[in-house]
Amino acid sequence: MDENYMRIALALAEACTYEVPVGAIIVYNDMIIGRGFNLRETLKDPTAHAEIIAIKEASQYLGGWRLENCTMYVTLEPCPMCAGAIVNARIKRLVIGSTDPKMGCCGSVEDLIRNSKFNHRVDVTFGVLEDECSKVLKDFFKNLRDKK
Amino acid sequence: MDENYMRIALALAEACTYEVPVGAIIVYNDMIIGRGFNLRETLKDPTAHAEIIAIKEASQYLGGWRLENCTMYVTLEPCPMCAGAIVNARIKRLVIGSTDPKMGCCGSVEDLIRNSKFNHRVDVTFGVLEDECSKVLKDFFKNLRDKK
Repeated sequence: MDENYMRIALALAEACTYEVPVGAIIVYNDMIIGRGFNLRETLKDPTAHAEIIAIKEASQYLGGWRLENCTMYVTLEPCPMCAGAIVNARIKRLVIGSTDPKMGCCGSVEDLIRNSKFNHRVDVTFGVLEDECSKVLKDFFKNLRDKK
Repeated sequence: MDENYMRIALALAEACTYEVPVGAIIVYNDMIIGRGFNLRETLKDPTAHAEIIAIKEASQYLGGWRLENCTMYVTLEPCPMCAGAIVNARIKRLVIGSTDPKMGCCGSVEDLIRNSKFNHRVDVTFGVLEDECSKVLKDFFKNLRDKK
């Protein structure tokens, strides 16, 4: 089940062309109610990460900012901003494809989503379709280097 | 100078009515290029904090996501999401009114903006118009309790 949903998040990442390819979906009652891909360059907006866009859509769908019974699937471990948004939105569960040793804030660099000092903690599962999620990023950066 | 700008951020906070009153502005070359107040309930959006809204406006103004020579003035210490967004946007300097011992991620609970593990660090100044910034929040929560 997790793999099926992660494959959809991965398809969103693969739809990125000149953006760092990251995709995210939010699932509620077995239905996708939020989706996003990284649009930072396109929208010229440092907050336009896949996760933030997916959270905005899901909140509109549910008619409120509490995404309490939702699961997010994301191809790359969320950065501090997105990990904080996941906590703010009270998302119940987070499923991650590949880890991010540079900015990942769900355990790699810091852990904001299971931090007992905050008022909400998130269940997390790592490594779902890890190789595919990692490959789409590696291919993107290889292409970028080849072009230079 | 910091007090003058913080007074404008405070005026934005005071314009909030049924939202937790927080205001933020972004200054570039002595000009305000971004402004925001908390709209989480109004927009039913957990990402609609004052800082995120101000960052979006400033990015549109500058035509890119790097707010490198910008200063943000915010009446309350940013949460993990907003602190992460400030790092992502490469904001140079952050001026804070009152601290947030529950969610503040610029030194109170965690410190995401001066974290040597990330690729950007922010200069921070605390305590500008601290009493006024704190009072607007205290008054809001007192009103809320009185209504109940």
